[in-house]
Amino acid sequence: MAVNKSDPRTIVVVGGVAGGASAATRARRMNEQAEIILLEKDRDVSFANCGLPYHIGGEIADRSALVVASAEFLRRRFRLDVRTQHEVIAIDRSEKKVEVRRADTGESLSIPYDKLILAPGASPLHPPIPGADASNVLTLRNLDDMDRIKAIVDADSTRRTVVVGAGYVGLEMVEQLVERSIEVSLVELQRQVLPLLDPEMAEPIAAEASGKGVQLFLGRGVSEIVTDENARAVAVILGDGTRIDTDLVVLGIGVRPNVKLAVDAGLELGETGGILTNEFMQTSDPEIYAVGDACEYVYGPTGKRMRIALAGPANRAGRLAGQHAATDHSDPMPPVQGTSVVRVFECSAASTGMTRGFAKRFGIAANSVTIIAKHHAGYFPGAEMMTLKLVYDPETEKILGAQAVGGEGVDKRIDVIATAMQFGGTVRQLAGVDLCYAPPFGSAKDPVHMAAFAACNQLDQITEFDEFDADLTGKQVVDVRTLGEVEKSPLVEVSSVIHIPVDELRDRILELDSAIETVVTCAVGVRGHIAARILKQSGFNVSNLSGGATIRNRAMKE
Amino acid sequence: MAVNKSDPRTIVVVGGVAGGASAATRARRMNEQAEIILLEKDRDVSFANCGLPYHIGGEIADRSALVVASAEFLRRRFRLDVRTQHEVIAIDRSEKKVEVRRADTGESLSIPYDKLILAPGASPLHPPIPGADASNVLTLRNLDDMDRIKAIVDADSTRRTVVVGAGYVGLEMVEQLVERSIEVSLVELQRQVLPLLDPEMAEPIAAEASGKGVQLFLGRGVSEIVTDENARAVAVILGDGTRIDTDLVVLGIGVRPNVKLAVDAGLELGETGGILTNEFMQTSDPEIYAVGDACEYVYGPTGKRMRIALAGPANRAGRLAGQHAATDHSDPMPPVQGTSVVRVFECSAASTGMTRGFAKRFGIAANSVTIIAKHHAGYFPGAEMMTLKLVYDPETEKILGAQAVGGEGVDKRIDVIATAMQFGGTVRQLAGVDLCYAPPFGSAKDPVHMAAFAACNQLDQITEFDEFDADLTGKQVVDVRTLGEVEKSPLVEVSSVIHIPVDELRDRILELDSAIETVVTCAVGVRGHIAARILKQSGFNVSNLSGGATIRNRAMKE
Repeated sequence: MAVNKSDPRTIVVVGGVAGGASAATRARRMNEQAEIILLEKDRDVSFANCGLPYHIGGEIADRSALVVASAEFLRRRFRLDVRTQHEVIAIDRSEKKVEVRRADTGESLSIPYDKLILAPGASPLHPPIPGADASNVLTLRNLDDMDRIKAIVDADSTRRTVVVGAGYVGLEMVEQLVERSIEVSLVELQRQVLPLLDPEMAEPIAAEASGKGVQLFLGRGVSEIVTDENARAVAVILGDGTRIDTDLVVLGIGVRPNVKLAVDAGLELGETGGILTNEFMQTSDPEIYAVGDACEYVYGPTGKRMRIALAGPANRAGRLAGQHAATDHSDPMPPVQGTSVVRVFECSAASTGMTRGFAKRFGIAANSVTIIAKHHAGYFPGAEMMTLKLVYDPETEKILGAQAVGGEGVDKRIDVIATAMQFGGTVRQLAGVDLCYAPPFGSAKDPVHMAAFAACNQLDQITEFDEFDADLTGKQVVDVRTLGEVEKSPLVEVSSVIHIPVDELRDRILELDSAIETVVTCAVGVRGHIAARILKQSGFNVSNLSGGATIRNRAMKE
Repeated sequence: MAVNKSDPRTIVVVGGVAGGASAATRARRMNEQAEIILLEKDRDVSFANCGLPYHIGGEIADRSALVVASAEFLRRRFRLDVRTQHEVIAIDRSEKKVEVRRADTGESLSIPYDKLILAPGASPLHPPIPGADASNVLTLRNLDDMDRIKAIVDADSTRRTVVVGAGYVGLEMVEQLVERSIEVSLVELQRQVLPLLDPEMAEPIAAEASGKGVQLFLGRGVSEIVTDENARAVAVILGDGTRIDTDLVVLGIGVRPNVKLAVDAGLELGETGGILTNEFMQTSDPEIYAVGDACEYVYGPTGKRMRIALAGPANRAGRLAGQHAATDHSDPMPPVQGTSVVRVFECSAASTGMTRGFAKRFGIAANSVTIIAKHHAGYFPGAEMMTLKLVYDPETEKILGAQAVGGEGVDKRIDVIATAMQFGGTVRQLAGVDLCYAPPFGSAKDPVHMAAFAACNQLDQITEFDEFDADLTGKQVVDVRTLGEVEKSPLVEVSSVIHIPVDELRDRILELDSAIETVVTCAVGVRGHIAARILKQSGFNVSNLSGGATIRNRAMKE
């Protein structure tokens, strides 16, 4: 096989973290004869990017644990020519060489390549507002950033922090700063945390943060950072004029792919601004590969190429590109579903594929169903509630995406659904997956099954669903919970509700008017489903409120 | 749609636990006009079968938590005609009625049906040996059994227990009895615990039990149970003459499907002795359905029908049969992978599909690879080791099965692989699944990916693997661990080993003879892979010992 023919060639890898390090080490395993040069502009290679917040918070106590593979280790084990503080400033494609500037010596040098792998990553965005360049306004992308933030957090005088941006990094920072007993304010331009999730799925994360004392400022941007005479930030001014005093500002408002090198070299970009690649991660120049946050992948749910700045695909693409660069052969890169997870105190949120919001924004026909279920057998101690939302194509029945929020086990359910999506799975097929069950781990009917069952019921018109935010005006709304439940947590944003507990519905059906469009609801949708079936079979035009009062009240409480 | 046409019919369900209760409730949701009669020979319906051991151990403190849905609840919410202590003793197919004997009154009655759903379950085996009918020799299948065992365990005089059978129920009982501070001996006829797993995958479970003080008697059967003058068991005698004194014997040696009713009615059985069913769970009489432990399902890895006594398929098949019986329409029952999990103290084992042992026994061509990896990012606190074994077809590359043993997260990995199997997935496709990653949940390269990568390396002849139990006689065995590791845990069952740490291998390659078939090994297989690649590219005929010294020493230590 080609992969076992050792063949001298020079492979230059630009960028030494997830994608770059994976590429270089796989290239070496594939080709002992190659010269493999790993160029990293910063001081560290192969560090645990995703672990940075946890050292600031102290959960990862030992800083050295974050160094996945030191330069020395990579030299010794993989005979990689690792050169840190080497910034590639230009690619000469006709001569097949890169121009390099050494940050340590200022020296310039030129390095020839046979194959070039670009893994330059992305850079955190800095907002173009007054005060944003203050020394205590920081982003978190590498160990140096981490050290700077940690030094400020460690200082006795630091009592208050503002985190700007409620995405993954922002929320992880919030969690870790709270663990350090620092007052935290979280500012997010969108009206929700985790703007990539549907709002009602993100709400429990916001509630969890609030419950830990975090001040949330949602739907508001930062218009100015006030600095003192030492040019240190002392307050953040929001768009509505709110002033938040602070000792530190951490920015987590997104990243910009580092594509300048590629653009300057005339490599093509894709529609979403990442470096265009083919199935072997080759750019428009087949001798040059691109992987990681700077490139585009095929996005599973749409089949279109887009940027997906996640560590998993970067690692897998790096490994694949490294093999291809070393041997001219590899499997193709499969589609990426964009699967991700974040832990925020006791609550976690995970997602894969597209949300209902994404589908609406891009005009993609999508149904969604939401269920609330326990993460393992309800009779076994420690069962935690999980909300699981499934988005699917009503024509093809294919799963388009899923989101889960709750305690234990949200990662498992999203991984199962992401796996089904990798195979183009339908909700009907998902209903049949055979998952392991014992009381400490799950339920005989897992939340995944329950969500898939709901979708199949919807497809088969066994039960229609109303979205949690449906306009119920003019409809006959029937709440089938017990009186105690209704009194404790009445349905919000509904003018008139008829209350008939599900167990009395058959006997009291004449109290309802079958000529009026009817919506039933309960706590989470299970009793609503039974009620909807009873009414439908009596000739009602009826739907079940997806996720019941829990989701509606959660989403509409503000 | 047919499913919304309410149509009066009489549906009789025989058996009121997992499959039967699911069938009856789904039938009601589908058909409000049907008369639905649920006949259960015991006193309880819809109890949490899988939870029984945990009430004995006290982990589920409240007995009533085990009643998933009481007869009264089923009557009220689903208008089911629930009749407990009603044993069906015959089916009259020509007259379409069942003959019933009431255990409470002794009365006999005859109940007509339009559709009949059989969910009679399976009965625990009792060994045909002296003393097996003693009052303190018990099996665990229902609440009565549980109460009997718990009463003995609760008695002050009970200090010692023998559990016979190291399958799921046996091991769960062992765990819970240890929690009650009772001395536990575990007897198993096979030479391993969890006989349905490959031996080296079951070994950590045995080690865990041993570590908790459980006395293991593997490879030995029970030949006699010694009773006292009150006909109570006082000791167990094993096949080799060993005597174990005891106050209680719990039998978990397997179950026999309750097919007598079906056989007597002339319904066909399948090859494995379960009631034969089609894709809608109809038996050879289309008016009669069978679900649960008494029937057969299509087994995913082989495509053949077999008995699979698990709660998950029973629940899903029950739901499907209930719908079909109520409406003459449902989706077909998908193949079942036989996915299962058991927790034994801090260690868990999960599996799906077939083992290497199963493949060998049935002459099915199968490769296997084993990896050992941390369940989440190694640099994040609390990472636990997991062993993951993947079994696949070397021709089609399809996944045939997987087993995982370790701490946290074994259930997640097996569920992901089971899901891939549901779609006929190959190991190559598995390598590309996009799983969620954040340090508290996983790794950018998940154990699932690592196992799939290893399988792809094997398929592409990038690295050959030797099974952990390979005969290494005459081979050049190279251990590439550090000296400290080798001294601490030398490779067992190998006469001569050359020790060259992986980082020195390139420089010391001339110490090895490329003319001799070579096997490299390290702790878990990662460094072995690098070493194998170095040697292979230097012309060696080399393989990597799958799972490294850890697996070999684990499996061969006795």
